[in-house]
Amino acid sequence: MNILINDGKILPMTTSEGDNLYFKGYVGIEGEKISFVSSDRKDALNFVASHPDARQIDATGKIVMPGLINTHTHVAMALLRGISDDVPLMEWLEQHIWPIEGKMGYQEVFDGARLGILEMLMGGTTTFVDMYPYEEAVAEAAETAGIRALVSPCPMDFRMDHFENDWKQVQKRFSSSRLVSMWMGPHAIYTLSGEHLQRSISLSKELGVGSHVHLAETQTEQNNSMAQYGMSPTEYFEKAGLFTTKTLAAHCVVMSDHDIEILAKNGVSVAHNPQSNMKLASGIAPVKKMLDAGINVSLGTDGASSNNDLDMWEEMRTASLLQKVSTLDPCAIPAYTALQMATVNGAKAIGREGELGVLADGALADILLVDIEKAHLYPHTNLISELVYSAHASDVDTVIVNGNIVVENRKCLTMNAQEVCGTAQKHIDALMAK
Amino acid sequence: MNILINDGKILPMTTSEGDNLYFKGYVGIEGEKISFVSSDRKDALNFVASHPDARQIDATGKIVMPGLINTHTHVAMALLRGISDDVPLMEWLEQHIWPIEGKMGYQEVFDGARLGILEMLMGGTTTFVDMYPYEEAVAEAAETAGIRALVSPCPMDFRMDHFENDWKQVQKRFSSSRLVSMWMGPHAIYTLSGEHLQRSISLSKELGVGSHVHLAETQTEQNNSMAQYGMSPTEYFEKAGLFTTKTLAAHCVVMSDHDIEILAKNGVSVAHNPQSNMKLASGIAPVKKMLDAGINVSLGTDGASSNNDLDMWEEMRTASLLQKVSTLDPCAIPAYTALQMATVNGAKAIGREGELGVLADGALADILLVDIEKAHLYPHTNLISELVYSAHASDVDTVIVNGNIVVENRKCLTMNAQEVCGTAQKHIDALMAK
Repeated sequence: MNILINDGKILPMTTSEGDNLYFKGYVGIEGEKISFVSSDRKDALNFVASHPDARQIDATGKIVMPGLINTHTHVAMALLRGISDDVPLMEWLEQHIWPIEGKMGYQEVFDGARLGILEMLMGGTTTFVDMYPYEEAVAEAAETAGIRALVSPCPMDFRMDHFENDWKQVQKRFSSSRLVSMWMGPHAIYTLSGEHLQRSISLSKELGVGSHVHLAETQTEQNNSMAQYGMSPTEYFEKAGLFTTKTLAAHCVVMSDHDIEILAKNGVSVAHNPQSNMKLASGIAPVKKMLDAGINVSLGTDGASSNNDLDMWEEMRTASLLQKVSTLDPCAIPAYTALQMATVNGAKAIGREGELGVLADGALADILLVDIEKAHLYPHTNLISELVYSAHASDVDTVIVNGNIVVENRKCLTMNAQEVCGTAQKHIDALMAK
Repeated sequence: MNILINDGKILPMTTSEGDNLYFKGYVGIEGEKISFVSSDRKDALNFVASHPDARQIDATGKIVMPGLINTHTHVAMALLRGISDDVPLMEWLEQHIWPIEGKMGYQEVFDGARLGILEMLMGGTTTFVDMYPYEEAVAEAAETAGIRALVSPCPMDFRMDHFENDWKQVQKRFSSSRLVSMWMGPHAIYTLSGEHLQRSISLSKELGVGSHVHLAETQTEQNNSMAQYGMSPTEYFEKAGLFTTKTLAAHCVVMSDHDIEILAKNGVSVAHNPQSNMKLASGIAPVKKMLDAGINVSLGTDGASSNNDLDMWEEMRTASLLQKVSTLDPCAIPAYTALQMATVNGAKAIGREGELGVLADGALADILLVDIEKAHLYPHTNLISELVYSAHASDVDTVIVNGNIVVENRKCLTMNAQEVCGTAQKHIDALMAK
């Protein structure tokens, strides 16, 4: 399909703070790619002349911007939203989350992923990076719902057989997918023996893919790593050679200056998950320090059961506010930086800089229309500030992924919302009754 | 008007954690008051028999709960949303906020307040506590829009004449209002001489009203107070006799144990404003400590220019998450406590315990219907957690204030949204061009 978006406020995310960040203009889409982004009406007229069948969308009163990239989640955990909150971490895991997860199979993961994907699409997330058992099910859910996904089959000591089967299935079924790609997901220092970590690293190299890992999420992880290996988790992974693969590290809360240096030196990207880190009382990641050190920091929601949603607008706002208050610097993480973290930095984190996270000629057509004709976004004086400090997921009106309209007028076109929600409810009721 | 709300999930906020917090049931409204709250269908049938003309509302798939109480804002600052962000506090005030505020008169405050009130009603806030010049204009905006307001004309050394005129006008025009009430608003230690503070205190006593004050918002305020008076702002206000009036203190970020003792001993309520404190990098209020000391802590948004919205759902979520991460205790401020802060504690803070903030026989009918049939709120396992950790202002479907339906199916019935937003835009454009 070809699409022409008319008269929107275009926020391409291709410019640096200080430049003209947005302008009134037009975006043309040819198949799965953006064919032009322009403030000149002539370009729109030319596009229509050469694509007379193009679907035209009126974006008056709307911001047109790249889709958001959620670089760390366990999307199927949407099924577990709210089953346990406000309890200590180990009680949360051992008494609530793990027992239920132990009963989840392919179908539960598939339907849980559908619920999470529905929420993400409705809120303007067009790409997510996942890690969970049954990534094959997550890949299938993503492909059928029309969202872009980087899935990470996840080696853990107690289920290596499951992992070996999972990555092979994903490769077999989705290697030619336009939406799904795969990395390895070495889970964390505390769930992987050296041998199994090496298996993950060699698979990454063999398949030419990156690694998505949990890193330095809690003080306990740090303490145990020091006790067991005499070094921090970051130092351990560097020594093991993990960072010789392209790496995306989620959390990075407990980080020494040396750890930060290691990530910077190795070009490791970070997925910052502020709301999850707050809710689980893990701590505050030194995001400003990491950005200042030149590390590419992106944003993730983590799973819905420690957040409790998959809302990238909240992560942007929280990332900015939390750094301001924790560094006592009201200039920390200004609004445009938060937007970059959720778009261009996310694209870079998964090795797709230039292709995703921007509106530019030749980039993939993952695009949002955000409706700003609402009281909580008035008056309009600074659209960047509006988006980061006042906008909500519910202000997203239209979502395009890979050139396909998947949400329009706040209705998901690729999924039946009532069916997706009802199915999820049935699963959790059954799982909790077991 | 009489109203019967049928088949909702009733969250009365009258019970303590551990009890049955919500149940399927009915709420009857007779004029401005709630006449019954019940899980028994017979009560609904009896109500219809005695009020055959009652308007019936189907609340299937919705939570029915008390309206939210925003205990600290400067509502007219909605007009200044986004004019300056991500800059140091003094630059923000001196170069951006104050110059524009200096040009604002009655009409700008009135129309700014209308914008803020529209946003608040659409998001389920039914009562707000305000402080600003021209509280007469804020009172008029509240009365005509149908929202409950406690306005606080605000003595400051450089505009005592304005203050004396303002409170008299509010008293003259609104003393018999069903929606508007008035307290004194002694601004802060750093803007009031001892003499003018005493004027505020005696007026509070003379009129039999409380005091709404900014207290201990920043380290600078604390340092200056120590240098000038040899004591903390809290100690200073206690010594001056402020706390012999019923007091609501906004912020309370920089608090010693002795300061906390003083507030507890004097029954001073706190308005916690987590997002504003984060955005301005003021610091993290010791909310858990204050609650543990028996202080009544409520929630406020502060003005929209330091937030940047008037969204009590975000304040609930942020209050909970911020205490968890700052105390490293995932059990801090559990969801139900956050809901209490936004409802019953708010009512208590303004001396209206039992009348507002609850669904109970004889309480005023300030009621929300929250639509939970959405992907980001599924599956339903714990409604309290859903409301605090996942719900948004945009999930509020219907709002009743003082027995009148003011928002229905997400449309404000008392204001023309387009006109309110357009007028605000014209004002800010004119103010910035001046």
